[in-house]
Amino acid sequence: MKPDAPRSDVERVIETIEKLGYKPHELPGENRTAIGITGNPGAIDPAHFENMPGVADAIRVTKPYKLISKDLRPEKSIVKVGTAEIGGGELAIIAGPCAIENREQVFSVAKAVADSGAKFFRGGAFKPRTSPYAFQGMGEDGLKILADVRDEYDLSIVTEAMDERGVDLVEKYGDCIQIGARNMQNFSLLKYVGQTRKPVLLKRGLSATLDELLLAAEYIMAEGNYDVILCERGIRTFAAHARNTLDLSIVPAIHNVSHLPVIVDPSHGTGRNYMVNPMARAGVAVGADGLIIEVHSNPEQALCDGAQALTPVQYLALVQEVKAIHKALSPVVNNFESASVV
Amino acid sequence: MKPDAPRSDVERVIETIEKLGYKPHELPGENRTAIGITGNPGAIDPAHFENMPGVADAIRVTKPYKLISKDLRPEKSIVKVGTAEIGGGELAIIAGPCAIENREQVFSVAKAVADSGAKFFRGGAFKPRTSPYAFQGMGEDGLKILADVRDEYDLSIVTEAMDERGVDLVEKYGDCIQIGARNMQNFSLLKYVGQTRKPVLLKRGLSATLDELLLAAEYIMAEGNYDVILCERGIRTFAAHARNTLDLSIVPAIHNVSHLPVIVDPSHGTGRNYMVNPMARAGVAVGADGLIIEVHSNPEQALCDGAQALTPVQYLALVQEVKAIHKALSPVVNNFESASVV
Amino acid sequence: MKPDAPRSDVERVIETIEKLGYKPHELPGENRTAIGITGNPGAIDPAHFENMPGVADAIRVTKPYKLISKDLRPEKSIVKVGTAEIGGGELAIIAGPCAIENREQVFSVAKAVADSGAKFFRGGAFKPRTSPYAFQGMGEDGLKILADVRDEYDLSIVTEAMDERGVDLVEKYGDCIQIGARNMQNFSLLKYVGQTRKPVLLKRGLSATLDELLLAAEYIMAEGNYDVILCERGIRTFAAHARNTLDLSIVPAIHNVSHLPVIVDPSHGTGRNYMVNPMARAGVAVGADGLIIEVHSNPEQALCDGAQALTPVQYLALVQEVKAIHKALSPVVNNFESASVV
Amino acid sequence: MKPDAPRSDVERVIETIEKLGYKPHELPGENRTAIGITGNPGAIDPAHFENMPGVADAIRVTKPYKLISKDLRPEKSIVKVGTAEIGGGELAIIAGPCAIENREQVFSVAKAVADSGAKFFRGGAFKPRTSPYAFQGMGEDGLKILADVRDEYDLSIVTEAMDERGVDLVEKYGDCIQIGARNMQNFSLLKYVGQTRKPVLLKRGLSATLDELLLAAEYIMAEGNYDVILCERGIRTFAAHARNTLDLSIVPAIHNVSHLPVIVDPSHGTGRNYMVNPMARAGVAVGADGLIIEVHSNPEQALCDGAQALTPVQYLALVQEVKAIHKALSPVVNNFESASVV
Repeated sequence: MKPDAPRSDVERVIETIEKLGYKPHELPGENRTAIGITGNPGAIDPAHFENMPGVADAIRVTKPYKLISKDLRPEKSIVKVGTAEIGGGELAIIAGPCAIENREQVFSVAKAVADSGAKFFRGGAFKPRTSPYAFQGMGEDGLKILADVRDEYDLSIVTEAMDERGVDLVEKYGDCIQIGARNMQNFSLLKYVGQTRKPVLLKRGLSATLDELLLAAEYIMAEGNYDVILCERGIRTFAAHARNTLDLSIVPAIHNVSHLPVIVDPSHGTGRNYMVNPMARAGVAVGADGLIIEVHSNPEQALCDGAQALTPVQYLALVQEVKAIHKALSPVVNNFESASVV
Repeated sequence: MKPDAPRSDVERVIETIEKLGYKPHELPGENRTAIGITGNPGAIDPAHFENMPGVADAIRVTKPYKLISKDLRPEKSIVKVGTAEIGGGELAIIAGPCAIENREQVFSVAKAVADSGAKFFRGGAFKPRTSPYAFQGMGEDGLKILADVRDEYDLSIVTEAMDERGVDLVEKYGDCIQIGARNMQNFSLLKYVGQTRKPVLLKRGLSATLDELLLAAEYIMAEGNYDVILCERGIRTFAAHARNTLDLSIVPAIHNVSHLPVIVDPSHGTGRNYMVNPMARAGVAVGADGLIIEVHSNPEQALCDGAQALTPVQYLALVQEVKAIHKALSPVVNNFESASVV
Repeated sequence: MKPDAPRSDVERVIETIEKLGYKPHELPGENRTAIGITGNPGAIDPAHFENMPGVADAIRVTKPYKLISKDLRPEKSIVKVGTAEIGGGELAIIAGPCAIENREQVFSVAKAVADSGAKFFRGGAFKPRTSPYAFQGMGEDGLKILADVRDEYDLSIVTEAMDERGVDLVEKYGDCIQIGARNMQNFSLLKYVGQTRKPVLLKRGLSATLDELLLAAEYIMAEGNYDVILCERGIRTFAAHARNTLDLSIVPAIHNVSHLPVIVDPSHGTGRNYMVNPMARAGVAVGADGLIIEVHSNPEQALCDGAQALTPVQYLALVQEVKAIHKALSPVVNNFESASVV
Repeated sequence: MKPDAPRSDVERVIETIEKLGYKPHELPGENRTAIGITGNPGAIDPAHFENMPGVADAIRVTKPYKLISKDLRPEKSIVKVGTAEIGGGELAIIAGPCAIENREQVFSVAKAVADSGAKFFRGGAFKPRTSPYAFQGMGEDGLKILADVRDEYDLSIVTEAMDERGVDLVEKYGDCIQIGARNMQNFSLLKYVGQTRKPVLLKRGLSATLDELLLAAEYIMAEGNYDVILCERGIRTFAAHARNTLDLSIVPAIHNVSHLPVIVDPSHGTGRNYMVNPMARAGVAVGADGLIIEVHSNPEQALCDGAQALTPVQYLALVQEVKAIHKALSPVVNNFESASVV
């Protein structure tokens, strides 16, 4: 739509799309609003739209994805999560324990996270564990503790859901629904979170290609939920010095084709305590919009993933270092448009 | 339990386990019945059981998995699927189109499958597609067609479910619930099918290790459903001459530690029509208990995965060749016990 | 060239190619002789040749490889190695210890190999070891033992060379120069063996694509040595149940584009004693022209790769099983032309 | 040795090692000199040495590698290359074209490199190409051009050798012998460069594990050449958005166990022009001791790897950004000791 198109023009285009039997997707931007069309079995004649009032341009997106694409929305998306944002100029730091274990543990970590200036708190109440006999999470009781953390520290809550019941509960208690790597292509779950109105943090699957990750996001957006944040968390390779291989080159690759923000998880991405800080620095330097970090007050006794959790002291050192890098690069990476045309 | 233990002894052991607050799993074998215990937070003193009447031995399984293990059940499991079996001496052939497209297509393929002597028919009514805009399957209408195929040709029906609603429908219309590679670690779904009483065909995830596959089966069995068939369908590697890399060495690796039957999918495992037959032969030669093959009456017009589907004529050639290999090897691979001690 | 083209016609074409400043490669086949051209900076006008006497056809090969291609030579190559052949209808079995350790060890294994009916003996005198402190092989003394094995048992000798000095020695004492996986893209070495007149067994690199393997063979052939046998020996993936992932689908992929024979190495391809036999069976079933197998009279005391070596008794069982499969498939896999057009 | 041990004490220890039939390796450090022992078939009794004058401690290294290990030399190695250094506090930037094509091309790039403040120039005279028909490099003529660049711009020359003849020539004309990824396990070549006295830049193989890389360095050092610089240049994975997957986590992993410096190659590591700058930033942020960057005055006409080469303008922007990061992190990453104990 043209920058000065009145609301009535936008609505007329939306109505026209619906009359054709397709699904309209309104994506407002800083300067202009884009309207995506899905549900069409084949190409649509641009002539349907390009002469309508308020329409600036009718573009056919020939890539396998549409709504995630910069063709549709050239400006970067800024996703509102609780009271904070991901994708703007500020570096988003999401920190907290792997699993919610009990109130004391959670509050002790939450204090450190709040003190560091981070605005987001993470912690799992539903844990996808390789073994059925491992700790599976506290469930709704854990979510209640997270809600109390938000009230106490004004931290926005990011937490995982593994199924529809979990999504309903996270919607009730949390601020952002995390879809884990193992569920990245759980298409039924993607469609379900696409129908909620909470932002979604979508983690890349262990062997997902760039296109598969983007199309998983497209599944969510095609249902009408456009608040998607992508997350690189390491892929599975032959290399054994780290638990996974953190594939940082996907950050510029995503920024090259998509308007969605992308964050980096150096905790799962390495699985080694001593690598988390250097890889967090690298993640910020490569241009990620944020980090998600595991912090535990006593990593050796963590019920889950202790080998990769930072102590609060290590975490605070990390925050200082990544902020120094972010500041040094501000003229560069904040400018999304130019970054992608290097 | 001892081979001659009366039913009352078995039941007393089960009661004792339940009284301790744990979960008993009765796995009857040809010679003796094994009773697995799960739900115990730590090691259990074998003395609880080893002096009870009818108990032959109390073994502590120290591996991460229990119920899938040959430690618990040294004889191979034979899984009944509809009116046929997988895991016995006979080679199981499951064939049919990737997706159920319409009644004519399905019946024309089903006739070829029945004529070949195969006892199982496959076809997807719910399709996990990388893109939200690709054909997603016919849903319940497709399942009804499959049920008609069973009535007409006496073929047992194997078909995929992607979520709980799908599982309920497959239970109603089909004979075996397929869990696809992308859902291998959808733990909520695994628990759900663990509560059904239909056998489950569990496909290996694209980057799943042997232990992850076995523990996914353990998720199902820990809920009380012991009828699990594993399936190798190719892993994701750098190699690009095939769509996936069919990792046949997992077949002897599974037989080495587990009593569960395992089949091979050379169609998804290669993604190339001309490779399906040679890799099917290799799958039988390596000792797989069966094959799952995509057949389409007109591969070029298939709505899904046409590049790997065989024509009925190619499929019949494949059946002849794999039967010749199976026959040549019968003295070898039918003997599971010795095969695993090569 | 036409089937009935006299030698003088062939020579005139070769001269013409040389006059143009290019390099001719004469590849005689059962029915007709093909002459490949390399060294041309761009496309050559077919008109130069197609009207010359005896020329049947002038074909431009647009693939990155030429001499390995079925476009140039549609019939399968049969490579003569010592007194035996690889690539014809018979299954080639190359067996022996990983490393030559001493005369007694070698002769005891050689006897078992000869007794099995195999025609080729393997054993390394130069060992590429990951650590500089591991046993590096017996060198020329080991090669002399191998030459004695040939004299005693009429087995053709296949042994590895790691550098130019090694190639010279293997040419002197052995029948086939093996280029190991780690040297598959040691282009200087490939050119050097391309200038010898001994056949070359070229093993696929741990992360080599199909094209890279074929182009490594092309390096050898471009120097004038057309007797190349390819070998699949496992690739590096995330999977840890075997030492490598034996990628059998490359066998039909090679047969699909190249006339070169290809064998399978289930010993290095799995690294696990109990997997060698089943994967050897699979290699034969998929259509490989032969196998290379590690046999050691006392695997537990082997100086190298003991975990994957078979005892003589296990080896004899393997030979029986793979021969049964080869016989069952003879009508199929011996017919190379039709196999590749499945 | 003790910090104040006189030269005579050091020499007596070396003599003692030689008398025992082993090989001594003297590695002088800032505070004290370490003497490594190799060539011993088994463990050596520390009592041989610990009471000798000047000996501070006799440590048994139980890892598969010795000379590369921080157990032997806890201080970081600083490698002198021509007139400059790699591994000290300063960020080393090695830049230049992929292949030496002609004098004009090379000098135009060299000027940009010198202007940027970089101290090292790269460019290949011997090119390991996948195809035998691709441009193979200018050979000795190319090396002469590089020697002229050194004279003109005081840049230290880093250039690849692929075989012994190449090593001899690079020793004559260059300042640092590069061993390419495909030759990382060409053990004969490693031993040969171990006998030269020029520093070696050792690139990680496409599927090399951490241990394999370190042991390849150990091969060079075991021959007496201790000036080894490691280089991460991307590994082969399933991911296709970049040509390789740059595995930055190997940088802290190397620093954790080895005193050797390590640099990052974002050009080969991504193969995509637009990713080079962000991944170079990430490489510096993760703590690499330097970068190696491909620059071409006209990437579109490059004879080799044009898709990843930066223009001089892009290269200058990169240098500014990575210097900003290096400066922001100086308190952190310059302190090697503490970095490895995070």
